[in-house]
Amino acid sequence: MTSDSVITLAHGSGGLDSENLMQTVFARHFQNDILARLEDAATLDLREALPGGAMPQKLAVSTDSFVVEPLVFPGGDIGKLAICGTVNDVLMSGAAPKYLTCGFIIEAGLSISLLDSICASLADAAREAGVVIVCGDTKVIEGKTQNGGLMINTSGIGVFDPEGAAAFPPIPAGLVPGDSLIVSGALGDHHAAILSARMGIENEIQSDCALLTPVVTALAAAGISVHAMRDITRGGLATVLNELAAASSVTIELAEGAAPVQPAVKALCGLLGLDPLYMGNEGKMVFAVAASDETAALASVRATEIGRETAVIGRVLLREKTETLLAPRVFMRTSIGGTRRIDALYGEGLPRIC
Amino acid sequence: MTSDSVITLAHGSGGLDSENLMQTVFARHFQNDILARLEDAATLDLREALPGGAMPQKLAVSTDSFVVEPLVFPGGDIGKLAICGTVNDVLMSGAAPKYLTCGFIIEAGLSISLLDSICASLADAAREAGVVIVCGDTKVIEGKTQNGGLMINTSGIGVFDPEGAAAFPPIPAGLVPGDSLIVSGALGDHHAAILSARMGIENEIQSDCALLTPVVTALAAAGISVHAMRDITRGGLATVLNELAAASSVTIELAEGAAPVQPAVKALCGLLGLDPLYMGNEGKMVFAVAASDETAALASVRATEIGRETAVIGRVLLREKTETLLAPRVFMRTSIGGTRRIDALYGEGLPRIC
Repeated sequence: MTSDSVITLAHGSGGLDSENLMQTVFARHFQNDILARLEDAATLDLREALPGGAMPQKLAVSTDSFVVEPLVFPGGDIGKLAICGTVNDVLMSGAAPKYLTCGFIIEAGLSISLLDSICASLADAAREAGVVIVCGDTKVIEGKTQNGGLMINTSGIGVFDPEGAAAFPPIPAGLVPGDSLIVSGALGDHHAAILSARMGIENEIQSDCALLTPVVTALAAAGISVHAMRDITRGGLATVLNELAAASSVTIELAEGAAPVQPAVKALCGLLGLDPLYMGNEGKMVFAVAASDETAALASVRATEIGRETAVIGRVLLREKTETLLAPRVFMRTSIGGTRRIDALYGEGLPRIC
Repeated sequence: MTSDSVITLAHGSGGLDSENLMQTVFARHFQNDILARLEDAATLDLREALPGGAMPQKLAVSTDSFVVEPLVFPGGDIGKLAICGTVNDVLMSGAAPKYLTCGFIIEAGLSISLLDSICASLADAAREAGVVIVCGDTKVIEGKTQNGGLMINTSGIGVFDPEGAAAFPPIPAGLVPGDSLIVSGALGDHHAAILSARMGIENEIQSDCALLTPVVTALAAAGISVHAMRDITRGGLATVLNELAAASSVTIELAEGAAPVQPAVKALCGLLGLDPLYMGNEGKMVFAVAASDETAALASVRATEIGRETAVIGRVLLREKTETLLAPRVFMRTSIGGTRRIDALYGEGLPRIC
């Protein structure tokens, strides 16, 4: 198999060509004891899942398919994204991400050296996250273009420590009136990076594609009681906040201009008429803490590399029983004292950002 | 949303259109307590995973992406297939399938009523298998054709009962010289059904797409010690047997004509020059038992609806240390007393059968 080889339908046959691809690409990057057994299903020993041999009583499970185009973008590629996206989802439930499955759907024509570099990036991110890829699957389909393409599904399993040291409440319905809402950094970077790449606009914008492990770990280490947390992906902060507010039956007030946005992202949004509140990130989260924990939470997250721009963006209000269904769940208090309704994303957004 | 609506890119935005699709299609078919919480990750309580409250110490995990074309075929559809394929993989490890994740990648243009009927079929098969769909994900991509398309990833989690009542050895390296090899029914049905549909050949062939639960349950109930078992999918029986023989360092002898093949499948193979040994099934398995257990194993599996044509197809031989690497791992003893080498599938096979 030479470096300019491409994937053909035979690589998806289940026969010797599949075996060959497995050995020369996948096994080389993903080698571990569990995967090496090459069973139809991987066997996980829960007695080895937690340090000290405690048995987890609960698991967190998440699944995500990644269809981003282009496959490689400023700040990352689909391999890194496939790990960060699913690991972050598991993290948001309060569990420690531990095992991952990985399903590749490859369009014939994909360069094997590109596949190889994406697998290297995926394996690096998995190591950084401390997760083990326990089983995989590869299918090859006819390509839309001669250059092929790639989609990746990852499903993640996390363990809740029964000692509870690292565990946050695993329900999104945890917002309490009076809570402070905090974002872990600037909005819209990933979305803006993909959009720029797709439109051929040259700028300095990089995707923020990253593991949220340091942020969650910092909050846990500081002993902060997090009332709810969610990563900000498709649909943007506005959509996430609407879902959180609905689940908790509260109203959310945002302060205009409080959420950080990189100057280059702001410029792109101005040019294209986009609102960063509706743009997806891949390495940012929003979380709620009691107002009395706000200062400690900010300090602990700002001490992390990816959380330096952490900022308070608003607060949780009581939703009066007398409020109509049409009253906004999320609104922004503008600088001149007015209010602006912030609904969930309606319509298309930018497809294939993750 | 009317019945002739089609999927658009907006359904993959993560905004209100996504939410709408979730409520009108997915939630309707897949409703359950775990999914209803709509978290980023589902929480599974292992204390409820086994009857009687015993805690599983080991899990089996498997992942599979389904890209079959056409989406609906004689004997099933991609929804049923996505359950059977992954559940069967978990079953083959000796674990009881319990939880499933489900990732949909939809090509814009897909009819929503077709998606709905596929989800109904998927949900039916999940109920029959006794598995709960605990989390899902939907992405929409640009379609290759106006009619759209659909790919589904399912990842399955099974639990090993520490009491061991239902557990089989979870390693493929269990073949012992002298073992009898048994297939649970006729070869090639699924492959032949897809091939016929794709080539526009009219015949009576139906896919054998089915859960293998009754076969595994029957063997366990009869107290048979199964040395190894594998479902027969891509690459066919020949490829599966080569993998099993290599893992166990044994040689396998097949008896010519012993593996059942439906007359219509045999006719199609004759017409197209195909060998049923290399054709995929989606509801058949091969397993090995001690020769002394052969009669009891045959009787117990033949008593199931899907195992009526169960047949002994060969036996396991000692692989002499003096045999060269080039000596076949699997060979067929022909009716006139000769031998024929049976290698693993080489080359393309038929793509997109699963």
